[in-house]
Amino acid sequence: MLLEAVYHRPKLNWTYAYDNKTLHLRLRAKKNDLTEVYAFVGDKYMWDQSKELIPMTLMISDEMFDYWECSYQPPLRRTRYGFLLKSGDKQIWMTESEFTKERPAGPERLFEFPFINPIDVFTPPAWVKDAIFYQIFPERFANGDPNNDPKGVLPWGGKPERDNFFGGDLQGVIDHLDHLSELGITGIYFTPLFEATTNHKYDTADYMKIDPHFGDIATIKKLVQACHERGIKVLFDAVFNHSGKTFAPFVDVMEKGEKSRYKDWFYVREYPLQVKNGVPTYDTFAFEPLMPKLNTENPEVKEYLLKVAEFWIKEIGIDGWRLDVANEVDHAFWRDFRKTVKAANPEAYILGEIWHESSGWLQGDQFDAVMNYPFTEAVLDFVVRGTLDAEGFANAIGKQLSRYPLQASEVAFNLLDSHDTPRLLTLCKDNKAQMKLAALFQFTYSGTPCIYYGDEVGLDGGADPDCRKCMEWDPKRQDRDLFAFYQKLIAVRKELAPLRTGSLKFLLAEKEGSKLAYERVLNGEKVLVLLNNYDAGQTIEVPATGSSWRDAFGSQTYSTSDGKLAVKLPAYGYAVLTLA
Amino acid sequence: MLLEAVYHRPKLNWTYAYDNKTLHLRLRAKKNDLTEVYAFVGDKYMWDQSKELIPMTLMISDEMFDYWECSYQPPLRRTRYGFLLKSGDKQIWMTESEFTKERPAGPERLFEFPFINPIDVFTPPAWVKDAIFYQIFPERFANGDPNNDPKGVLPWGGKPERDNFFGGDLQGVIDHLDHLSELGITGIYFTPLFEATTNHKYDTADYMKIDPHFGDIATIKKLVQACHERGIKVLFDAVFNHSGKTFAPFVDVMEKGEKSRYKDWFYVREYPLQVKNGVPTYDTFAFEPLMPKLNTENPEVKEYLLKVAEFWIKEIGIDGWRLDVANEVDHAFWRDFRKTVKAANPEAYILGEIWHESSGWLQGDQFDAVMNYPFTEAVLDFVVRGTLDAEGFANAIGKQLSRYPLQASEVAFNLLDSHDTPRLLTLCKDNKAQMKLAALFQFTYSGTPCIYYGDEVGLDGGADPDCRKCMEWDPKRQDRDLFAFYQKLIAVRKELAPLRTGSLKFLLAEKEGSKLAYERVLNGEKVLVLLNNYDAGQTIEVPATGSSWRDAFGSQTYSTSDGKLAVKLPAYGYAVLTLA
Repeated sequence: MLLEAVYHRPKLNWTYAYDNKTLHLRLRAKKNDLTEVYAFVGDKYMWDQSKELIPMTLMISDEMFDYWECSYQPPLRRTRYGFLLKSGDKQIWMTESEFTKERPAGPERLFEFPFINPIDVFTPPAWVKDAIFYQIFPERFANGDPNNDPKGVLPWGGKPERDNFFGGDLQGVIDHLDHLSELGITGIYFTPLFEATTNHKYDTADYMKIDPHFGDIATIKKLVQACHERGIKVLFDAVFNHSGKTFAPFVDVMEKGEKSRYKDWFYVREYPLQVKNGVPTYDTFAFEPLMPKLNTENPEVKEYLLKVAEFWIKEIGIDGWRLDVANEVDHAFWRDFRKTVKAANPEAYILGEIWHESSGWLQGDQFDAVMNYPFTEAVLDFVVRGTLDAEGFANAIGKQLSRYPLQASEVAFNLLDSHDTPRLLTLCKDNKAQMKLAALFQFTYSGTPCIYYGDEVGLDGGADPDCRKCMEWDPKRQDRDLFAFYQKLIAVRKELAPLRTGSLKFLLAEKEGSKLAYERVLNGEKVLVLLNNYDAGQTIEVPATGSSWRDAFGSQTYSTSDGKLAVKLPAYGYAVLTLA
Repeated sequence: MLLEAVYHRPKLNWTYAYDNKTLHLRLRAKKNDLTEVYAFVGDKYMWDQSKELIPMTLMISDEMFDYWECSYQPPLRRTRYGFLLKSGDKQIWMTESEFTKERPAGPERLFEFPFINPIDVFTPPAWVKDAIFYQIFPERFANGDPNNDPKGVLPWGGKPERDNFFGGDLQGVIDHLDHLSELGITGIYFTPLFEATTNHKYDTADYMKIDPHFGDIATIKKLVQACHERGIKVLFDAVFNHSGKTFAPFVDVMEKGEKSRYKDWFYVREYPLQVKNGVPTYDTFAFEPLMPKLNTENPEVKEYLLKVAEFWIKEIGIDGWRLDVANEVDHAFWRDFRKTVKAANPEAYILGEIWHESSGWLQGDQFDAVMNYPFTEAVLDFVVRGTLDAEGFANAIGKQLSRYPLQASEVAFNLLDSHDTPRLLTLCKDNKAQMKLAALFQFTYSGTPCIYYGDEVGLDGGADPDCRKCMEWDPKRQDRDLFAFYQKLIAVRKELAPLRTGSLKFLLAEKEGSKLAYERVLNGEKVLVLLNNYDAGQTIEVPATGSSWRDAFGSQTYSTSDGKLAVKLPAYGYAVLTLA
């Protein structure tokens, strides 16, 4: 046993309450090192009567480690625990202070999860597990009202530049809700809608006002209501890390300098406010002078922004907030933000934009989820870039799952592209089969998948601003095959619950391999997913029970033989199988 | 290089802001495996101009691992980082996603500490680093006012039982402040003072009232003021996990059952409230029917308790709270508790009673420190029980230091005994030399040491209730040698700043060894501490610069020879040396 590889620490992803009664315990060990692992648990105040050994199962693996897991329901909410590790005929006990050959006599030096207090239990809104999101960049989705077009608006479909406008607006979204319903999505994430100077609107001028080029409060009310009638939830984008340069308090500071009553709303390092050698004399997002960083520690600023957060929920009925540059805003702010938002709507979804490891925000006191870019990178590395083989991909997914409590993975926001990245089709060098394979994984994995507007009809585009092209509304120029594929993907995900919240086990993911197979199981219902990540046909063989399996795509059936299922898949082919 | 042993994860003890400008980065590796470690850091928005390699130093080790550390001051509060690990002529880079032979081309897949937001920086009150605490169990310290004695009070000095009384009170403490000033302590931690039925007062009847057997609000005001005049801070005990059975809201629930307006102040599992087979039908501390658990999630209860916390700070001027059974109360409560307490007194010390690993409470949003029982156990295992050798002891201390941010270790509450444990002298089987050696370590280590009342004059006693004997006030029956020792210990700690906040390095701590040597260094000022944990004399030899060193105890000087210092110590002897 390589004890140096064994890791456990209370809290975080290692011991957490999954619900008000259930603890999850996890332990990391070197890959393929342990053969059996047990949690040794009990209530410290009645140790002898309550102590028990609970077998742990291999939850997932990554490149170097296995992650073992079990559930435990303490009789009186209190838990002391240790572990028993076995490798063949060797065994050792693990306590908080040491590894020891002796079984711990009592609970004294064990780990502790002292009490399950419901208020601390991380409880994301349940609906998100089943949601399918669609991201809309409003300036480029549809122009429904030419009367509100900005000056100098260009004809729809022109080349997107950093600073040009095509007149997309909220009426345009309302006009095209049928397209979204037809597709089957159940949630829209809107990039910012508030008044701002740019086409992307990440430089807010007024947090309480819909950008007049998009519409007004009546239009957004109408839109949200129409969405709700169709069973579509609506997320707004909270750009609270920074305001825009035209935000009234910042204008005041620009004008009055140190004498402005708003000077502590920002972080001014030196007066007057200016840009010196490319670096503003005030803190900004990156080095962007248009985006002065807000001092969210200032109680006035905090109160203002929390009122904004509450207003759009109460007044318009939005279903959550996506938080821009969430990792650069203080944790204290987000804790109060969560209280405010959940008080206004307990079912609101709080989604942070964080690109890196996000444990510090996913403990139940701040966000429900983050934009899952590590997921994005893993899928792209495997399917698109070819820098990961099947084994490496399974490891990257395993690492990601191991990092967070289960409830966080169940509502992770799984995207493959966005307004901040090149489009999926372009990353795939227009190889639609490859693109479909990437999306197939996205839609057969835990978390909530999100489609970037237009991907479903074959919109392409490189890095920003090219990924922000106008939506294609001419059916003849839309890729209807791709649309039908996404439609089917969504329908299959909706139909097969295990794809949403089932457990995950990789059945085939070999070194240098391009075949991937995994099962998702929920309450005994199993779905087998097979992917051929190769530009020629391959046969994928996996162990399988039952006699025959039906593909949710195409309804072909395959028979098992000797407890195995062999399925020939074309180049970049896939199958999503259930017992026939 | 054993990569399975390498551990780093953002936040917690691994990357944290030590102050508003400075990050500490730590990395764990197998013991003696790496020869050099570097942090690769920079600002992601100006990576090429800002990136740098910072050498990490070996901070501390434990049984299996080395912990490497460095400081970094990001130019604009943002940090992306990775690591470069070297072992002899081999090297490898570590990013958030992988180990790689290639130097990472850019910051994309590195770890991230996105922004130092001052409000999130863990900032315990600075005075605690220099404080020396003294714990008073008021019923047993001194009877200053016979008029307030409980019925059936026993003559001072009788055998302590779970339910008897000797009449100790606040006037008694006031009367004996000279004793404390003479000793030199600078803080008192009082076990509960509020009205309650027991002698220990952990079953609060009224949180707003001093127990009438101890005095009244005027007495405590007088006492706190007298303490402050002497430079002594005062900590109260917040018993917020549970109330007493005589607490009015609980009395109401006992009487009215489900009809009580206070029924949601507690966790009643079944009415009527009773004890069935030793288990109360309502949640309690342990299974103690006298101590019903408070529902701190109930906003009314929270508001009430936070008002209590605020009242005693504002009205009486106390300097902090020790939190009883702190780990079983919800985190949400403690976050608001911190806000309330720090608003009332930004310099208040918040000390949680947690016996196990406490990272979840020591991130800056909840406690400043915990009662450092893992420290207690390590010292007792080494000096008293002999279950740890010198190497094992250094490892246990190393493990403890590695777990928390530096600022938490600097204000850790380091006790060797308390009202909840047998007394140190008794643990030492009355071997005073052994007792002194244990205290010597306590007072030459980081954190704030605490003396349990009476230890300084030779009070003994086994487990509760025996450890709660009446204080000995007859000078002839006091151990004045022990008193002089503690006096000296305190004086030396006050004189030598490195003992309080200097870095720690073990110089000698061998397997099966009983000699221990370590240095504490602050701003170039070094203190060498030598301990002989053996019942016969031994010579301890350590590398040392300079020509001669003076012992702070006894003022003997020792000369170095060939860069070494050899000091002969008697059985359980010690030396605390500074350059002469």
